[in-house]
Amino acid sequence: VSTLYEVKATKPINYKLIKTSNLFSHRNLSLLIGREHKNGVCVIVVDSAIYDLLVDEINSYYNHHKIEVTLIKIEGNEKKKTMDSYQEIVNVLDRTALHRRKEPIIALGGGVVMDIAGFVASTYRRSVPCIKIPTTLMGYVDAAIGIKNGVDHNGNKNRLGSFHEPHTVILDKGFLETLPHRHIVNGVAEILKIAIIKDKSLYDLIKTEGKASILSNFKLTGDEILDKSIIGLIKELESNLYEIELQRPSDFGHTFSPVIEMKNLELDMLHGEAVAIDIAISCTIAARRELISMESLTEIIELMKSLGLPTTHHSLTTELLMSGLEERILHRNGNQNVPVPSPVGECIFLQDISRDEISHALTYLR
Amino acid sequence: VSTLYEVKATKPINYKLIKTSNLFSHRNLSLLIGREHKNGVCVIVVDSAIYDLLVDEINSYYNHHKIEVTLIKIEGNEKKKTMDSYQEIVNVLDRTALHRRKEPIIALGGGVVMDIAGFVASTYRRSVPCIKIPTTLMGYVDAAIGIKNGVDHNGNKNRLGSFHEPHTVILDKGFLETLPHRHIVNGVAEILKIAIIKDKSLYDLIKTEGKASILSNFKLTGDEILDKSIIGLIKELESNLYEIELQRPSDFGHTFSPVIEMKNLELDMLHGEAVAIDIAISCTIAARRELISMESLTEIIELMKSLGLPTTHHSLTTELLMSGLEERILHRNGNQNVPVPSPVGECIFLQDISRDEISHALTYLR
Repeated sequence: VSTLYEVKATKPINYKLIKTSNLFSHRNLSLLIGREHKNGVCVIVVDSAIYDLLVDEINSYYNHHKIEVTLIKIEGNEKKKTMDSYQEIVNVLDRTALHRRKEPIIALGGGVVMDIAGFVASTYRRSVPCIKIPTTLMGYVDAAIGIKNGVDHNGNKNRLGSFHEPHTVILDKGFLETLPHRHIVNGVAEILKIAIIKDKSLYDLIKTEGKASILSNFKLTGDEILDKSIIGLIKELESNLYEIELQRPSDFGHTFSPVIEMKNLELDMLHGEAVAIDIAISCTIAARRELISMESLTEIIELMKSLGLPTTHHSLTTELLMSGLEERILHRNGNQNVPVPSPVGECIFLQDISRDEISHALTYLR
Repeated sequence: VSTLYEVKATKPINYKLIKTSNLFSHRNLSLLIGREHKNGVCVIVVDSAIYDLLVDEINSYYNHHKIEVTLIKIEGNEKKKTMDSYQEIVNVLDRTALHRRKEPIIALGGGVVMDIAGFVASTYRRSVPCIKIPTTLMGYVDAAIGIKNGVDHNGNKNRLGSFHEPHTVILDKGFLETLPHRHIVNGVAEILKIAIIKDKSLYDLIKTEGKASILSNFKLTGDEILDKSIIGLIKELESNLYEIELQRPSDFGHTFSPVIEMKNLELDMLHGEAVAIDIAISCTIAARRELISMESLTEIIELMKSLGLPTTHHSLTTELLMSGLEERILHRNGNQNVPVPSPVGECIFLQDISRDEISHALTYLR
């Protein structure tokens, strides 16, 4: 055996998260980012949840700028996060004459639309640029921020997907104003994740301003919560974009939640709701190990309840959670690597969570 | 509009092309590269063309090493380079408990199998390692070497795919010994590509040793041709792995060939045959522009014929080739960027090839 050649190269990753408002105001040029020619192809994957609400504004914007726009309406719920939806988008792209570099696909919607459209963009012609514009809080503080794309497959969450960076992430808080209460709370689960695992000051902010922020759909208050949460997450991701390190603080709340979410697909449980339940379980395990105090645990659970986040669910069994843990061990290459707070605002990783601990946590939370 | 955060990171790419012989000899440990535990999952995607020939040796090897092996037989021809084949592999993977990092999928076969299995590996769990072991000359000197994976879709070559590096490329020239003559010649097209566009010394070697190398399936002679070709290609790719620069010398022979190949899918035209025809067309255009001499053109065409490579085809029309050029312009972001020799062994890019030139080249080659 001899080495004929060793390939050594680096791929530079560089993208911006930008904040704007009144995205569809004709004078706002954010939607033209990355376009070389005005008269080229423009494809927007639009979440069906906001299609009717936004279609007139979208068309008016592009009419004004004399750009022909192709809208692809995609259902943005977990049940439709499939290769079928992926193919649907691909087939429309095949009917356009999309250039490879200078006509970014735009993904406009919730986390599911970010993930599917991002996966299509990363594999179409082996990658075309994608601009992610989240319209839900889950998209805003989580799904649109990093470089992970994907679809569920054969009952497994994000089984097929890619690590591929967006061209740009455009954040317009205005979309949150019309978001149903349940979907605001859904996104708060990911904010709480970052707070508990790495930012005590964000945790304290949630305690004081979380409820009011939720009630006003982050219009009147909560800007600092959003910024801290996003910057906390992206700094965490940036140092480990390709998950070469498998001990990831941002996996907090994402150990048991994939099976919980897939188990309750037909009941339309939201991603953040499953994450919230996982956070409650993980914190309970941490408290029993005295990594956080019982007072902290009680405070977290009470805070979650006051924000409207679930902390348990009738579908939970020790078996289900053990199977989720086993699956994550495969994903984390043979180790549990379960992040838990120690203390609140910091993180350690557990490798030896037992069936008994899971069972105890379930009983405690019921 | 304000920037909330700018993400800056780099992804390191590092992989080896290694040469070995007697791959399935029990003492050869090349097949265990990248495996942490002997008793883990081992999945091999095997080209149906060599399945029967190798299945006993494969099983004997893994039996000896006490590793349970799962073989996935895939037809390695262009007609099967589809999302259906992709899904077939994915569905088998879903039935194994594949770890994410330490159980590389092995792709064993020709270029098509390299491309499909590489695409699956790059998207399964957002990427698991893949070891590429080419068994055809096309795989050996081209498809296995770089980081491009993909499948055809809606009649377009490699429409879906990824840039994702292999874990390791294992080169065992022994596989070429049983390769049918036509498939040897098929791979020579890619060798000739590198020679004409960037390595006059390789071109001269092909003139003196090409025919004998082909006749002996590269067993008795041709080692230097193979090494020079592979190293020439990988150096070309390494500096531009993600095709940020769209003027790519290695695109020589790949302007008109995608449509020629897809047009003749039902006739089982091979990739290298389409590439050879493209090389002949591109060189004819170059000669009429006096970028290479008419003597050089005649020599190239005669050399191709003596090696058994086609230089024209009854399916060719000016319209077909123009449509291929148009499609490539989309892929090359609005420019023709057609590489041609100037002189033989060096490369320039044309931006203004006309219908008339294509028509003239077709007539000349007939």
